[in-house]
Amino acid sequence: MKKKGILIVVSGFSGAGKGTLMNRLLKEYDDYALSISATTRKPRAGEADGREYFFKTMEEFEKMIAEDALIEYARYVDNYYGTPKAYVEQKLEEGKDVILEIEIQGALKVKEKFPDTLLLFVTPPDANTLKNRLVGRGTETMDVIESRMKRAKEEAKGIENYDYLIVNDDLEECVKEMHQIISGEHRRCFRNMEFLNQIKTELKES
Amino acid sequence: MKKKGILIVVSGFSGAGKGTLMNRLLKEYDDYALSISATTRKPRAGEADGREYFFKTMEEFEKMIAEDALIEYARYVDNYYGTPKAYVEQKLEEGKDVILEIEIQGALKVKEKFPDTLLLFVTPPDANTLKNRLVGRGTETMDVIESRMKRAKEEAKGIENYDYLIVNDDLEECVKEMHQIISGEHRRCFRNMEFLNQIKTELKES
Repeated sequence: MKKKGILIVVSGFSGAGKGTLMNRLLKEYDDYALSISATTRKPRAGEADGREYFFKTMEEFEKMIAEDALIEYARYVDNYYGTPKAYVEQKLEEGKDVILEIEIQGALKVKEKFPDTLLLFVTPPDANTLKNRLVGRGTETMDVIESRMKRAKEEAKGIENYDYLIVNDDLEECVKEMHQIISGEHRRCFRNMEFLNQIKTELKES
Repeated sequence: MKKKGILIVVSGFSGAGKGTLMNRLLKEYDDYALSISATTRKPRAGEADGREYFFKTMEEFEKMIAEDALIEYARYVDNYYGTPKAYVEQKLEEGKDVILEIEIQGALKVKEKFPDTLLLFVTPPDANTLKNRLVGRGTETMDVIESRMKRAKEEAKGIENYDYLIVNDDLEECVKEMHQIISGEHRRCFRNMEFLNQIKTELKES
């Protein structure tokens, strides 16, 4: 069976180690590509176009919106951020599984538009660990705790719409497990309709 | 997260190596239990009650049907065959993933009754291999080929209702892959609602 790339959205509680996890996954395995976002914010020192972001003018970005050239986008304060379709599709065609790191609202929008998208949610190993990370060690101000709690509640909404829980206990184990889950997904029947139809045709013709 | 067993149905084309695959899986990993069927047929030499089958009288079997004590059952000619619920539930409670080896009609009935059931379909690596196995090497009578074709067409019906395709190319690889797919399934969000609800409760109470 020819391997076609899967579009993967990774979300998760802040502090769950998403970033480190993604870096390790890309370093360990050749199967993945990280999606590069487009943005209208100005490049910072050391950032290169097409590496950290695709840097766009407001006009260019709004043209992309109008032409449905973005998988999803959002506006924060004065700037747009979004996922250009072309880059993702190119990588999928090359057989790479393409990873988008976006939060839950964006994730659900992507899934709606592309139902074959795989949604992964990264979480600490248990509720206590999460709580401890949020509350801190008694050294945080109430404001900081409040804002973390609010964010976590936001992040927790709709987790049940995700396909898998990635439990980040031991990093090495977690990277391996995440890779196995994604590899397994390639064997889903609905991702292999071409193969199935071929078998059915052969049987019919025989 | 406490590991709860998954009910797994394995079906597949005859000649795909299902039996060998199951034996290896159970030998290599401690996570699995094979479901034991109940039947009204007489035990053959060397068969033990509760090992090859649970041997039942017609009366006993029909009582099990009436009491909804079977996950699925079918009657072939003069005998009943079925899957006793009690044994499966006991093994699931022990944390074992319980494997049922049944054909497609039975599989879909089980899925309907227990929507969390994982359906796996074992297939040779490509349509040609399947065809060659069915047609044989020119040494088979038309009758044999006909009967194999008919069976394969029957088996191919509704494969798209299965969750995963298990492609049996290399046996060792296939056993490993099957185990990884099942392990991955334990991380499905819908199989971890207890954990998710706990996290949500913790966040609400904080």
